[in-house]
Parts: sequence; structure tokens; C-alpha cells
Amino acid sequence: MVIPDKKPIVRYDHFLRSRYGETDKMGYVYYGRYLEYFEEARTEMIRSYGVSYRQMEDDGIMLPVIHAELQYKLPLFYDEQIKIRVSVFDVPNVRLQTYYEVIAVERDKLCALGEVSLCFMDSESRKPCRAPEYFTEHFN
Amino acid sequence: MVIPDKKPIVRYDHFLRSRYGETDKMGYVYYGRYLEYFEEARTEMIRSYGVSYRQMEDDGIMLPVIHAELQYKLPLFYDEQIKIRVSVFDVPNVRLQTYYEVIAVERDKLCALGEVSLCFMDSESRKPCRAPEYFTEHFN
Amino acid sequence: MVIPDKKPIVRYDHFLRSRYGETDKMGYVYYGRYLEYFEEARTEMIRSYGVSYRQMEDDGIMLPVIHAELQYKLPLFYDEQIKIRVSVFDVPNVRLQTYYEVIAVERDKLCALGEVSLCFMDSESRKPCRAPEYFTEHFN
Amino acid sequence: MVIPDKKPIVRYDHFLRSRYGETDKMGYVYYGRYLEYFEEARTEMIRSYGVSYRQMEDDGIMLPVIHAELQYKLPLFYDEQIKIRVSVFDVPNVRLQTYYEVIAVERDKLCALGEVSLCFMDSESRKPCRAPEYFTEHFN
Repeated sequence: MVIPDKKPIVRYDHFLRSRYGETDKMGYVYYGRYLEYFEEARTEMIRSYGVSYRQMEDDGIMLPVIHAELQYKLPLFYDEQIKIRVSVFDVPNVRLQTYYEVIAVERDKLCALGEVSLCFMDSESRKPCRAPEYFTEHFN
Repeated sequence: MVIPDKKPIVRYDHFLRSRYGETDKMGYVYYGRYLEYFEEARTEMIRSYGVSYRQMEDDGIMLPVIHAELQYKLPLFYDEQIKIRVSVFDVPNVRLQTYYEVIAVERDKLCALGEVSLCFMDSESRKPCRAPEYFTEHFN
Repeated sequence: MVIPDKKPIVRYDHFLRSRYGETDKMGYVYYGRYLEYFEEARTEMIRSYGVSYRQMEDDGIMLPVIHAELQYKLPLFYDEQIKIRVSVFDVPNVRLQTYYEVIAVERDKLCALGEVSLCFMDSESRKPCRAPEYFTEHFN
Repeated sequence: MVIPDKKPIVRYDHFLRSRYGETDKMGYVYYGRYLEYFEEARTEMIRSYGVSYRQMEDDGIMLPVIHAELQYKLPLFYDEQIKIRVSVFDVPNVRLQTYYEVIAVERDKLCALGEVSLCFMDSESRKPCRAPEYFTEHFN
């Protein structure tokens, strides 16, 4: 997979530390756990724009994931400081597409790339809907 | 912790296999994952009595956990066949107390003991309530 | 993503049941958990050919994931019986590419598609290596 | 369970935020996830004393958990800021006993109590051993 080679309209760096329970017997962070890291980074990116994803859900809008892709280049180890760089290239409408770079900070290595697409959904009807204006205004 | 030394009113053996993602870098099943195993075994124990926990939730009754205890005696490894023996000693009323023995089948070793107490809760009011009769009748 | 439209050289159906702890507050199985399901199905597919992944690791060969893709079409709910159909289309050499269809059995719905690529690695040198013959012989 | 009513020799406050993937369909943080929170808080408590648990493992000492207990008083919700207060009351020798208070910061509510005991183990022989001096000196 490739992250688009153009200027993102949003970029956000989130830092976290890998937990023991996230490693597996190979000594690497388990491949499914990256999606939890992406979710945490995405939430903080949204919060940095003054929007709480939790508040959005309370307002009746859900954001289920419809597509995800991951490329694992180098392993992540236990207790590493990890930078998750989230980028958005297109203004969200009914869909929010997010890209991720996973960097092991101390080793200064790009360890993985990712993409996650989510769709806006009315939580009552569970049907797709447009992104609320208070959300999209930050992406213009 | 000690499992009561009396005849259980309910006993159920559930079998599962440890997943790779459940191990940690020590090569052991991570200590928090046992609570997922207990939940799976408990659900199947309830199902074996013709009651679906999922149906119970749909009927407006939730069973949040109020207490858990675990004693880890020997590690569980990856890809082991594991027997979770669930025992109930007291007829549930507002509370369901369950005990667990975790046995590595091929090694024939008792690896852990556990206890989990849950309370019956009305999912509308989120207040404690009595266990429904269709549930308790199997524990008499 | 699309699963290749040709005859697989290997096809295996694995059945599992979604756990409570695998759901999230949306009431759906969390998007990262699918990768645990794929791992479980893949392990059983390999076992069905008389090869134990655990044994392979003990023999000094690891299979880290290098790429994963998921398309979520319909949600999976709690306590659903789920069929994971694993397909392999190419004889593994230094890499094993696996495809997944996720079917909610009772609803008879295709809920998700997936792809996971793994590479064979010498666990001593942590360098890529060829798949062992006792492994590849089942894929010819 | 009760946290000892005496002055701890070590007390450390760790802050984290609950992730979406850590909630379950009840809308609460899943009961098994608390043990991941405790592990993260414990690691940071140890780091605050200038000792890295990761370094300790690299030096040949492991700290498997031998006992855990949890009392769930009030649920934790998604995206809450959570304070985990870790206390140690006894100088570790062959065993490290840690206590936890789980506080929802904005609601200012004590939501759970916990206890986790770990034993020092030589990772070569996988036999119990004494805590290294560079570890215990911070607890005197």
C-alpha cells in the first residue's frame, strides 16, 4: 500500500507506548493490535479539532470501519515509544479516509503503514449519512 | 484462592485452544486473557442449560461482573488445548458466582483457578434485579 | 478488495463464535478482532494438513505478517456462529498469501473479506527463508 | 477486597484514556481490560524509579503474575480519563505485591480496586529468584 503523495489537509502526530499484553510470543506487537493504535490516534486527531468522537456518538452518529489495510515493514517491540502519524487527504463527506505511519521513535524507523476508511452512519436507523458540519468544517 | 470443597449444583467443561495473539513475549498466555476464556466458558455453560446469554440481554437483563479473582499456578502456552471447568455452588438470586479450573489437557496440569461474580441488572434502569426464573430453574 | 476468481489450491472452513469481550459499544465485533479470527482459522487450516504452526516455530521458522487487508461489509454481532473460509491460491515459497471470507452462519451473510500475507523467517537470524518442504508439499 | 489501611512505601498515579476497542456491547470497559491498565500503570511506576521492566527482562529476570483480584464498583465508559493509583506496601523480595485504585477523573469516582502479585523469576531456568538489588533499593 502507498500513502498518497500529496499535501494532506489534516496531519496529526499521536504518541503511545506498546504494552506487554500487546506483544506476542514472537516478541513483536501483535498484528491485530495496530488497529487499536490507529483508533486511539484517530480519536485524538479528531479531538485536536475540538470534536469528541464520544460526543458525536451521543449525538446519534456512529463511524463504523468499512475498510482497513496494513503493511508491516519492521516489527514493533515491547515498551517502545511509538509515533502514529495520521493523515487525511480528502474532505470527509459520507466517508472518512485516514492514513497512518507507524514510527518507532527511539530507533527512528518507519515500521508500518496503514489505511482505515470509516463511514458516517445514523445510529438510530443504522443507515449511512453525511458527516455533520461541525466535523467537516475542520477539514476544509 | 480456594474453590469450595463441596458438591457444585452445576458443573460444565468447556474446551478451547489458546491463540497466538493471546500469548505475550514471555511465551505465556497473557494474564488478562484468562477472563475472556472464563466468559466464553460461562456463556457455554449457560447455553448448555438452554438459556442464551444473548437472549437474556435482548430481554433486558445484563450481567456485569462485580468481582474476579485469579490464581496462576502454571503458564499456558500457545496452541494448547485447554479445559475450563466451570462450577456453581449457590443458586443465583441477585448474583451469580462462578468458579473456574483451567487445565492444560495434553499436559494434564491444573494451571489456574478463578472466581467471577456477576450481578443481574435491569438494562433499562441499570439497577440490580433478581435472576429471571427461566434462568434460576436450571440451578435448583 | 477482491478475492481471486480462480480455483484455490487450498480451501478450509473454520467455525468459531464471537465472544462478548470482542464486541465494542456499537454492539459489533471490534474491527481489530477479525485479525485474531483469521489467525485462528489459518492455524487450523495448517493443522488440517498435518502441520502444526507451533511445531514449525519450535523448529526455528516464524511466520510474521507483512500485509493485511480487510473489507467490512456487514457487522458481526455477539454470540454469532461465524464461518471463516480460508483460501490459498498460490504455492507458498518465501511468502504465504491467505484469503478470508467471513460468513455469519445463521444469517447466511457474507460479512467481511480479508487478505493476510506472511513471510517465512528463520527465527535465529530473523531473516526471510524458504517455506520448509513438509509445509509446501500440501499446497501442490 | 480491601487495600491495606497503612502507609504505602510506594505510590504512583498513572493516567490513561479508555479506547473504543476496550469497551463491550454493554458500553462499559470490558472486565479483562483492567488487567492491561494495571500492567501499564505498574510499568510506569517501575520506570518512575529509574528501572525499566524491559531492561530487567533483557537482564534475565521475568515477572510473571501469580495472583490477581478485581472488584468492580462502577463501570468505566469509553473515552474517559482514568487515573490508576498503584500502591506497594511491602518491600519486594521474591514477590512484588501491587494494589490499584481505578478512578474516573472527570466524574471523580472510585470505579474499581485491584491487586496483582508477581514473582521474580530467572528467565533462563524459569525458577523463582530474588528481586535484583537495583530494583528493591527503591522500595526501602
